[in-house]
Amino acid sequence: MNLRIPGPTTVPAEIAQAGAADMINHRGPEFAAMIERTTAGVKKVYMTENDVMTLTSSGTGAMEAAVVNLMAPGDEVLVISIGEFGDRLINLVRIYGGKGTELKFDQGLAADMNQIEAALKANPGIKLVLVTHNETSTGVMQPIIPDLAKLVHSVDGLLVVDAISSLSSVPVKVDEWDLDVVLSGSQKGWMTAPGLAFVSMNERAWARADANKSQARFYFDLRRHQASALTGQTPWTPAVSVWFQLDKALDMMFAEGMDNVYERHHRLASMTRNGVKAMGLSLLATEGIESDTVTAIKLPEGVDGQKLLKVAQDQFNTVFAGGQGSLRGKIIRFGHLGWVHEEDITAGLDALRGSLAEVGYKA
Amino acid sequence: MNLRIPGPTTVPAEIAQAGAADMINHRGPEFAAMIERTTAGVKKVYMTENDVMTLTSSGTGAMEAAVVNLMAPGDEVLVISIGEFGDRLINLVRIYGGKGTELKFDQGLAADMNQIEAALKANPGIKLVLVTHNETSTGVMQPIIPDLAKLVHSVDGLLVVDAISSLSSVPVKVDEWDLDVVLSGSQKGWMTAPGLAFVSMNERAWARADANKSQARFYFDLRRHQASALTGQTPWTPAVSVWFQLDKALDMMFAEGMDNVYERHHRLASMTRNGVKAMGLSLLATEGIESDTVTAIKLPEGVDGQKLLKVAQDQFNTVFAGGQGSLRGKIIRFGHLGWVHEEDITAGLDALRGSLAEVGYKA
Repeated sequence: MNLRIPGPTTVPAEIAQAGAADMINHRGPEFAAMIERTTAGVKKVYMTENDVMTLTSSGTGAMEAAVVNLMAPGDEVLVISIGEFGDRLINLVRIYGGKGTELKFDQGLAADMNQIEAALKANPGIKLVLVTHNETSTGVMQPIIPDLAKLVHSVDGLLVVDAISSLSSVPVKVDEWDLDVVLSGSQKGWMTAPGLAFVSMNERAWARADANKSQARFYFDLRRHQASALTGQTPWTPAVSVWFQLDKALDMMFAEGMDNVYERHHRLASMTRNGVKAMGLSLLATEGIESDTVTAIKLPEGVDGQKLLKVAQDQFNTVFAGGQGSLRGKIIRFGHLGWVHEEDITAGLDALRGSLAEVGYKA
Repeated sequence: MNLRIPGPTTVPAEIAQAGAADMINHRGPEFAAMIERTTAGVKKVYMTENDVMTLTSSGTGAMEAAVVNLMAPGDEVLVISIGEFGDRLINLVRIYGGKGTELKFDQGLAADMNQIEAALKANPGIKLVLVTHNETSTGVMQPIIPDLAKLVHSVDGLLVVDAISSLSSVPVKVDEWDLDVVLSGSQKGWMTAPGLAFVSMNERAWARADANKSQARFYFDLRRHQASALTGQTPWTPAVSVWFQLDKALDMMFAEGMDNVYERHHRLASMTRNGVKAMGLSLLATEGIESDTVTAIKLPEGVDGQKLLKVAQDQFNTVFAGGQGSLRGKIIRFGHLGWVHEEDITAGLDALRGSLAEVGYKA
């Protein structure tokens, strides 16, 4: 099966097998060596000297961790949403009692810096800003992150970047861009099964977390994770078999070289976009801000999205993702991140062409 | 390596390999079929018709889920602790704003029903009681659970049972005992890698959760998990590879037959206890309430617990667990749950005898 969804992504055989290694004591020397090794590796991919904690959860768990560690009930917060995953951040902020200012942008667009600046000026109490780097639901990768970090810091704020579906596939320069808190998840570019999520915290973020005494947290209390990591452990039993996979995946990523990983993602994303356009289809993302990890394709009038997905899977052995929320049935999403190569894209495009013909659209 | 700790437990080769299967779409038909199948299987092991949700987290995540769904800040709660994991429940209740009455019993003892009854009588506002069934830190399995459920219900309360390290290894009759909320975790008797946790909820518990509007929750919001499961999904990306293992593990458990699984655990626990006593050692658990999944062994005066663990691992290829908290260095814990057979116990006892001799104690 050609798994062309934006995560979970294909786990290469060597990595899948690494997860089948004999179980170990999570309080023993083997795990201690592994957490030290993988943390160093994850930090290298993050391009950061900041602490990076590895949580046993999905990426949503990392989003929750950011919110409950950094935001107290009643805090003024700016949440910038360009799609479903931005809306999830909005939801989290509301649920955990934030006084949220919400800036929502139309599907296919990136956020507008002028509007963000105006929102921060209008609400000088805002000291925390949350944003999605790569919006999986619309296939948009926001180019504003480095500028946004500068802007947020200029008002003494803290920036949380959901880079779950970008970091490890495209360069996210955590230290160079001075990003305070950055999230990612094992089932994306990391070529690992789902179950682990990452959160980086700089000193500014730790200071905020330490001062935040009024938001209850336990499972996702990042200070507990950081303190345990110093002793070669996790506070709660970790997903050891997934961790074995991560350990192997990092080896493979560094063997390929991160610059080559980024170049491959960029090249295959272009190939996907060109192939899709050659069929006469158009993309949801505005030109210039298309994601290098997932392409959202507008379905032609009259094409039933749910039927197309079923035909692609049943007759063309290819799994695409559908649209989420209001985009359900209107787009399909073609993932090209992680363990993906030219032949996967070619096969994916062939499957898309074939499936469209099957449901009555002549590409 | 003979992994004789109370979890994570040995994952048999067939189950480990099942986890290496090709990755799938967590929003597709294969996952929908799997979640339906494993949920039915987990319910069978739980001996319940109640809803059982499978979370991507450690067992501590399930503990947090119970607390944040069922307890509002300010609620009066009784927490019964007989060791480290009971203390973790106390900690959770405090952190999430419960007005906790804490009943702590000495290490090696079970909780005393008279004291519990007195505590409930003295605090008629208590409508939620949390208790550990099998205390991994002391090797005690509490016999009081069915009586406790009756008592708690007689005062119109709700009972949460942490059965993380017992359920699936010993009979926990959720429906027959009328247990409202019961927790377990994949890395124990389930023979699966860590990363999944289970929570059962009966109607009484759902009513309480639905009425509990003032405690914020998102990742662990059980209603979200229940609603997603009805559509064959999870609200957040699940630990798919661990789920593959669970699917296979359930097959193996039912092939053996649950009564045989329980009989095997009981027999091997007796064998462990008898072997330990034959060395002149004594158990931390009071006679009659020893756990059938883990045996806590008091170390003779003068034996260095940390050194013993190292010798056992380095020279006898056997991993035992040390004591936690105030028991550190004073006991070792010998796990006998999950994929464990007579030869593992024999080898474990030999390793213990050899290690003791090595550190200067003549058994």
